[in-house]
Amino acid sequence: MKILIIGAGGVGSAAVSILARRSFFERVVVADYDPARAARATAPYDDRFVAAPSVDASNVSSVAALIRESGASHVLNAVDPRFVMPIFDACFEAGVTYLDMAMSLSHPHPERPYELTGVKLGDDQFAKAEAWQKAGLLALCGIGIEPGLADVFARYAEDELFSSIDEAGVRDGANLAVAGYDFAPSFSIWTTIEECLNPPVIYEEGRGWFTTPPFSEPEVFDFPEGIGPVECVNVEHEEVLLIPRWTKAKRVTFKYGLGDEFIDVLKTLHKLGLDSTAPVRVKGVEVSPRDVVAACLPDPATLGDVMTGKTCAGLWVRGMGKDGQPRSTYLYHVVDNEWSMQEYGHQAVVWQTAVNPCVALELLADGRWSGVGVLGPEALPHRPFLDLLVDYGSPWGIQELPV
Amino acid sequence: MKILIIGAGGVGSAAVSILARRSFFERVVVADYDPARAARATAPYDDRFVAAPSVDASNVSSVAALIRESGASHVLNAVDPRFVMPIFDACFEAGVTYLDMAMSLSHPHPERPYELTGVKLGDDQFAKAEAWQKAGLLALCGIGIEPGLADVFARYAEDELFSSIDEAGVRDGANLAVAGYDFAPSFSIWTTIEECLNPPVIYEEGRGWFTTPPFSEPEVFDFPEGIGPVECVNVEHEEVLLIPRWTKAKRVTFKYGLGDEFIDVLKTLHKLGLDSTAPVRVKGVEVSPRDVVAACLPDPATLGDVMTGKTCAGLWVRGMGKDGQPRSTYLYHVVDNEWSMQEYGHQAVVWQTAVNPCVALELLADGRWSGVGVLGPEALPHRPFLDLLVDYGSPWGIQELPV
Repeated sequence: MKILIIGAGGVGSAAVSILARRSFFERVVVADYDPARAARATAPYDDRFVAAPSVDASNVSSVAALIRESGASHVLNAVDPRFVMPIFDACFEAGVTYLDMAMSLSHPHPERPYELTGVKLGDDQFAKAEAWQKAGLLALCGIGIEPGLADVFARYAEDELFSSIDEAGVRDGANLAVAGYDFAPSFSIWTTIEECLNPPVIYEEGRGWFTTPPFSEPEVFDFPEGIGPVECVNVEHEEVLLIPRWTKAKRVTFKYGLGDEFIDVLKTLHKLGLDSTAPVRVKGVEVSPRDVVAACLPDPATLGDVMTGKTCAGLWVRGMGKDGQPRSTYLYHVVDNEWSMQEYGHQAVVWQTAVNPCVALELLADGRWSGVGVLGPEALPHRPFLDLLVDYGSPWGIQELPV
Repeated sequence: MKILIIGAGGVGSAAVSILARRSFFERVVVADYDPARAARATAPYDDRFVAAPSVDASNVSSVAALIRESGASHVLNAVDPRFVMPIFDACFEAGVTYLDMAMSLSHPHPERPYELTGVKLGDDQFAKAEAWQKAGLLALCGIGIEPGLADVFARYAEDELFSSIDEAGVRDGANLAVAGYDFAPSFSIWTTIEECLNPPVIYEEGRGWFTTPPFSEPEVFDFPEGIGPVECVNVEHEEVLLIPRWTKAKRVTFKYGLGDEFIDVLKTLHKLGLDSTAPVRVKGVEVSPRDVVAACLPDPATLGDVMTGKTCAGLWVRGMGKDGQPRSTYLYHVVDNEWSMQEYGHQAVVWQTAVNPCVALELLADGRWSGVGVLGPEALPHRPFLDLLVDYGSPWGIQELPV
């Protein structure tokens, strides 16, 4: 297998460090808009890893040309979700397998944004599902940690643990702290703003997908392994769009443990229009305010050394167990930043995201996973994934909660 | 008298509308970086008002050349305080009278910013006071509303109302609301950030000037004419640097009625580094984050039509009255936005700032005010100013408070 990774930011670089310990592929080409980043990501590793020249991920034919030159059969999209569609289309054009960790962007309903969905996350990709299927090509979408492992957990819950699911609710929380900064998000602020300020989407059987105002339904969730209680709120996320397509949950939600301070920052950015991606004119140049916010904050990928704590991603499933008794189970994955920094030199959040597409690529390489069309992780068998994740040194957990 | 106004933003444009009703001058030339703004400011008025071509206010020789071409004897600086020094220096070079409404910028103490002053507001201008005096030239600094009228009130308090002053405390508050915007400051956000996030300066007899952390000594002040109680905090402002130079107040403070929401916004901008003026690199271009914040918000000069409420500026003086009894007096000036919009087509805050240099220019034109050197408004007789302000249709008020 020859792999092309597009994007040498935090997640792309962490994926390189993880793949460097595996042997299922022959070659990994890493490309970025900034060729120096691609070179930095590959430099520490053996000669299976090669940095490509600069790529413009917004341009389908440039990306398709790069895919052909790289000789890759599998492309991992590790850039921000603005570039999902050009990379997805370039993979179709080049006839290769596509993997991403975030799906095509949503657009709110023009009149009733906080009640109805407009264009949903992934809609632009699913609109092309038939073409992918007919061409015999696979786009494996949302195969990071969330979406990704959370979706694998949904498959596992339905197949092995529950006879019926009342709610499949992704819950994400952390106790990460960054020393020396007043404010330093541990994940891309661009993506965090996108997720948190878009109207959150919820799925309910009978009603389908609908939206609410941002930060709705606050709830304190008690995260395992010492993280403890964190205030979580509804956030727009791919799992809510993916899980109902392949499982029978009556309700699907995503709640993110943002905490009060982060919610206040996001509300303020929104109030001032600084969350906007539309360019503003500033003394003769045009910039997107959201890009300026990102440029003012430290790059989360560089914060591993000054960060402490753990991050947890998981799926809280409630319903009837296989034994016919009510059941409430949290399936989760925790990464300790100290461990990921020591083992891989990458901080917990980006490492936790990056490990999942590496596992998926290995399953695709040896045929334990296969398929055609535009698929989410819950469309594929969970067992080989969950077992191989443990083999990557990164066990997942299961916790029974009071019903 | 020929006048050159540099800056056709909110305050410069309002000054034109005020001067248009007076007859003490022959000609007003208005210049701006953007010549269209200068043209818009002068267009509605008679042919005494002329728009100049584009001027770069950061360039001393360009400004000096403009002054000479304009034939002006008096220059009113109405641009943001970054450009105080080049305009001030250009006036000296051209040998004309200089007026401003904000003084040269401060730089915090490098080691103990929240205890000691570094370079103070106006220091760069006062450093050149002897040269101005020797040249027989006048720089009248801080002659807007605050600094400006507040300083005139200090002269009045010392000369007519008090035998000794324990504290001269500027207090500024408003009940302005802007319909249709989540957040819309009624004054330049650039200047507001500068004032509010710099360490506030306080003067005390014996101790001199010292600083505190931003937003210190919160206090609820009850503003007159229906505005009511507003939470005020210490802010860096010129009055604290000017009043002690010409009056004998034992303590001088400036507290601004920011309100909780505005304080939270400013703290968040600071936490994210979005208050910074140092350029950041964003996708190949360089911008100052603070300029981006300003570009995202509506131009306060354009908000008059959707704004309601009143703005109040004044000086709260406590000490011993001329009669030997303890006295607590608030000297103030209120502008109702509805009135200023109807009468002048300019919103309350910029109109209130702009009226004071117009009054000062008229006093300089007929010789009721005169002087040489770098002077604050409290260096000149208060009576003619306070009387002429009333003649401009804008009365001030006096309120006795419990001692």
